[in-house]
Amino acid sequence: MKIALAQQNYHIGNFEDNTWKIIGAIQHAKLRGADLVVFSELSVCGYAPRDFLEFNDFINECYRALDIIKEHTEDIGVIVGCPQRNPEIAGKDLFNAAWFLYQKKVHGVAQKTLLPNYDVFDEYRYFEPGYEHNVIPFKGKKIALVICEDIWNLGDNPLYRIAPMDELIKQQPDLIINISASPFDYDHDVDRIEVIRANVLKYKLPMFYCNAVGSQTEIVFDGGSLVMDANGRIVKEMKYFEEDFATFDEADYGGKKSEVGSKTEDAASPTSGLRPLASDFDKEMRVSKINNPELIIDYLTAEKNIKEIHQALILGIRDYFRKMGFSKAILGSSGGIDSAVTLALACEALGKENVRAILMPSQYSTGHSVSDAEQLSKTLDNPYDIIPIKDVYDAFLTTLKPVFKDLPFNLAEENIQSRTRGNLLMAIANKFGYILLNTSNKSELATGYGTLYGDMAGGLSVLGDVYKMQVYALARYINRNGIVIPENIIYKAPSAELRPDQKDSDSLPEYHLLDKVLYQYIEKRQGPKEIVAKGIDEALVSRILKMVNTNEYKRNQFCPIIRVSCKAFGVGRRVPIVGKYLS
Amino acid sequence: MKIALAQQNYHIGNFEDNTWKIIGAIQHAKLRGADLVVFSELSVCGYAPRDFLEFNDFINECYRALDIIKEHTEDIGVIVGCPQRNPEIAGKDLFNAAWFLYQKKVHGVAQKTLLPNYDVFDEYRYFEPGYEHNVIPFKGKKIALVICEDIWNLGDNPLYRIAPMDELIKQQPDLIINISASPFDYDHDVDRIEVIRANVLKYKLPMFYCNAVGSQTEIVFDGGSLVMDANGRIVKEMKYFEEDFATFDEADYGGKKSEVGSKTEDAASPTSGLRPLASDFDKEMRVSKINNPELIIDYLTAEKNIKEIHQALILGIRDYFRKMGFSKAILGSSGGIDSAVTLALACEALGKENVRAILMPSQYSTGHSVSDAEQLSKTLDNPYDIIPIKDVYDAFLTTLKPVFKDLPFNLAEENIQSRTRGNLLMAIANKFGYILLNTSNKSELATGYGTLYGDMAGGLSVLGDVYKMQVYALARYINRNGIVIPENIIYKAPSAELRPDQKDSDSLPEYHLLDKVLYQYIEKRQGPKEIVAKGIDEALVSRILKMVNTNEYKRNQFCPIIRVSCKAFGVGRRVPIVGKYLS
Repeated sequence: MKIALAQQNYHIGNFEDNTWKIIGAIQHAKLRGADLVVFSELSVCGYAPRDFLEFNDFINECYRALDIIKEHTEDIGVIVGCPQRNPEIAGKDLFNAAWFLYQKKVHGVAQKTLLPNYDVFDEYRYFEPGYEHNVIPFKGKKIALVICEDIWNLGDNPLYRIAPMDELIKQQPDLIINISASPFDYDHDVDRIEVIRANVLKYKLPMFYCNAVGSQTEIVFDGGSLVMDANGRIVKEMKYFEEDFATFDEADYGGKKSEVGSKTEDAASPTSGLRPLASDFDKEMRVSKINNPELIIDYLTAEKNIKEIHQALILGIRDYFRKMGFSKAILGSSGGIDSAVTLALACEALGKENVRAILMPSQYSTGHSVSDAEQLSKTLDNPYDIIPIKDVYDAFLTTLKPVFKDLPFNLAEENIQSRTRGNLLMAIANKFGYILLNTSNKSELATGYGTLYGDMAGGLSVLGDVYKMQVYALARYINRNGIVIPENIIYKAPSAELRPDQKDSDSLPEYHLLDKVLYQYIEKRQGPKEIVAKGIDEALVSRILKMVNTNEYKRNQFCPIIRVSCKAFGVGRRVPIVGKYLS
Repeated sequence: MKIALAQQNYHIGNFEDNTWKIIGAIQHAKLRGADLVVFSELSVCGYAPRDFLEFNDFINECYRALDIIKEHTEDIGVIVGCPQRNPEIAGKDLFNAAWFLYQKKVHGVAQKTLLPNYDVFDEYRYFEPGYEHNVIPFKGKKIALVICEDIWNLGDNPLYRIAPMDELIKQQPDLIINISASPFDYDHDVDRIEVIRANVLKYKLPMFYCNAVGSQTEIVFDGGSLVMDANGRIVKEMKYFEEDFATFDEADYGGKKSEVGSKTEDAASPTSGLRPLASDFDKEMRVSKINNPELIIDYLTAEKNIKEIHQALILGIRDYFRKMGFSKAILGSSGGIDSAVTLALACEALGKENVRAILMPSQYSTGHSVSDAEQLSKTLDNPYDIIPIKDVYDAFLTTLKPVFKDLPFNLAEENIQSRTRGNLLMAIANKFGYILLNTSNKSELATGYGTLYGDMAGGLSVLGDVYKMQVYALARYINRNGIVIPENIIYKAPSAELRPDQKDSDSLPEYHLLDKVLYQYIEKRQGPKEIVAKGIDEALVSRILKMVNTNEYKRNQFCPIIRVSCKAFGVGRRVPIVGKYLS
């Protein structure tokens, strides 16, 4: 049996585009002589449709798309992801289902059993867990059809009390097909291949793993669909961060383990088809690094991680604009490293001519701020303007004089400058149809080191899930083939330049200390005692955790952040604003 | 057995305050001779602790508080809510539990079985559902101890496949105790008493229902704890929107139905203890109103609803400030109805001397804007300032001239005015330590009729879950004992006054039409075909739904909204930003 995997980039709720894209790949699969073509989880409506699923009308649209696709299955099997109405009264209204269409009919349906309900996932909000497990016979083979999380319990995942493959294996399937929408993060990507291999070796079956690709607001799906034979050998890994299509003959993927003895290669060899660079990051090494505070920064800035983050951010920017129907971005270019990296990424994602940089010096700006930012835009060759903020800032101070009287300069005046810049950027954006890219990094957002409606303004945050130390590493990565970001931007001490001689280090711990603590608290959910126990100064830990927890109200008003870590601010991290814990 | 209910207002993660509050009520219950005192769901840590629950350290703090409380249970039974670690490896780490403490020991624990995971609820994110059901014996009685949602399946709730009381009843309990954290909304409050009554009548047992009170960021718990005897008669309904404490002798609440025949009153009588006004709103009448488009506005503005919304908003403002450690509010007072109602509510919640109104006229302001706003603040007797925005606005235009050139006035200039106001308010707030109250209403937020970082700025939204037609009703309610809000503010045509002769109706449908469609789409999740089928113009429906869906990105950056309806924007409504549905 020849099987095709179609790794595609869907647009949530855009039934017309998604349907055409699926039908296109069906036709292509037919031309390539495939018996079966497989698409990713909830491919018909895009993942994750979130509360759209609560609209009957939305489910009707899903079913209508399914009917259209069905018409193209006369002589090919097609597996697509689509919500299914629960025919029983008891239990939630929907299943997250994989539909096997063939000969213009529904040939079989498999329902997702393990529903992720952590981090960015809310599947239990919408779906009833599947409770029937049946292989689907097709052309003389029995297919174990499962969905994403269904393969993530091998009996040792405490989130679940059932392992769907343990049920299906009783019916002696010939192969496993898993349709997924598994998001990228640099902490997690290696786990995926490990889990697929563990399933393959446990059940002694080859697996077809079809993942989604593309960014949906904040969540980046990285593709990397793959076929693994029953011995744990990767037959083929498909592209990362791009659409892809491939067909597989039975000779490639083989059957159950016992039948493919002669094709066995060394499954344990770290070079046998693993994604490039990933082999350096096996689970053990990662665990040892993140548990040793001295190695956390090494881990965060490791080349594999930075390279993947770079790809994810470019896809995240590009898809946000394309799917929202925008083409042009604007951003404030301060001469600092965050805006420099954001600008370079945006130029790569959208084309340099579509990214306008605005330089907005004030009386507190140092001389190099404008010259560094100009140099950057000259190298990138993107349009830029210089708009001094002095007149607006002075008008604010004059207007507020009757209220402020002679009170000394403080945070209020600093914020006025930042908001004046935010306001100028939004005005130009509104006038010409630009979308404002935000340039805040994760270390700033964590500590509340930013001005609401000022430098925290924007429609999309590019670096909001990237710690400051990683921003430096990204800058060096961007300069890998020659200087794009001027070295002075990389090496000068970071400053908001909102008062004379200001430095970030006046208000924040040094970034290499800060990021180390933040990673343990945010990504690893270590409490203060646990972090201190690793040898980090108690006062420092307490100060940092308090900053994080008292600034939840700011992050609550922040724009979507392209997610690259296992715990980004935004939809996947839900913390009370009015809370008193560690604050 | 004498049982006390302690209806208290907790602060999430504030273990010290919560523990002292609980111990205080235990002492009070002892003095009143109670055998048992009951507190609400997750009382020890406050509801909902959200992702704090993912910190081991946070759970340690919960257990520490439990240990302290336990010391005070030598001669009284105490039921408190607190997370419980799951001793089994399989299943999530925690249960949402009710702890029965007695004689300084854990006398029994009941685990929540039905975990709400819809709207604002995410319990399945954190908790394993309880699967053991045992009554707890105490002083010769058997207590069926259940938690909140556990009583919301009487066999006909399609969200669940189990009814915990069906299990417990097999052990022949003598009474039901339910500890809850059940939020207020005007759509839902009557259901709660109906559900309690349905349980009592089905199981023929009296029920002690202890609810939380107080506001946690956006979610308002309204109290209304109650005791109902086995015949469905309300023995006592405790206060709404306030803390309360009461004790109940066995003679008051009786035993199982068969034992209390002589105490029976007419359970069906609408006046037998139902909350005031609620009797006009039995389920049937509500359903008939919201299914008839002609009656939706009547329903939304009904006196019961408006009165409750008024109470909820005052509590919401008051608790947000108190729990965040703030005391003073600022807001922009435009002379329009939204800011007038917000100002009046804030003065009532925080004290007039703590609410500063800023009047910021521009060249497009009509004469009555300033005079109406001044009149309002004179009546309310709160401090106010007049700060014209002309100089700042002109400075923006001059600064932007090299970029804007001679392009015509459009939305960009309108937004500059709005953001100038936002910036002035934030500057004063930063200088003097005010919190900016947002004045946007739900109709505006739904349609995106507002400026990000301008009139959409603020730390807390007072009216973001109140439709414009309800804002009018609130104004009339505030004026019920005499004019507070000048009649001119109520009767003039609404306008943003950002260009000459602007009216809201230039950009939006009339509010009585708009709100009718919005309610069906947002609260009732009707799709376009369903709304049109009720006789509303198709083009109008399509226009409104498109406005709602294309403005998700704006609401995503909005501050917390005090929730009063069954579907508020914010944590309880999760819609993709990059989505193409109905847009």
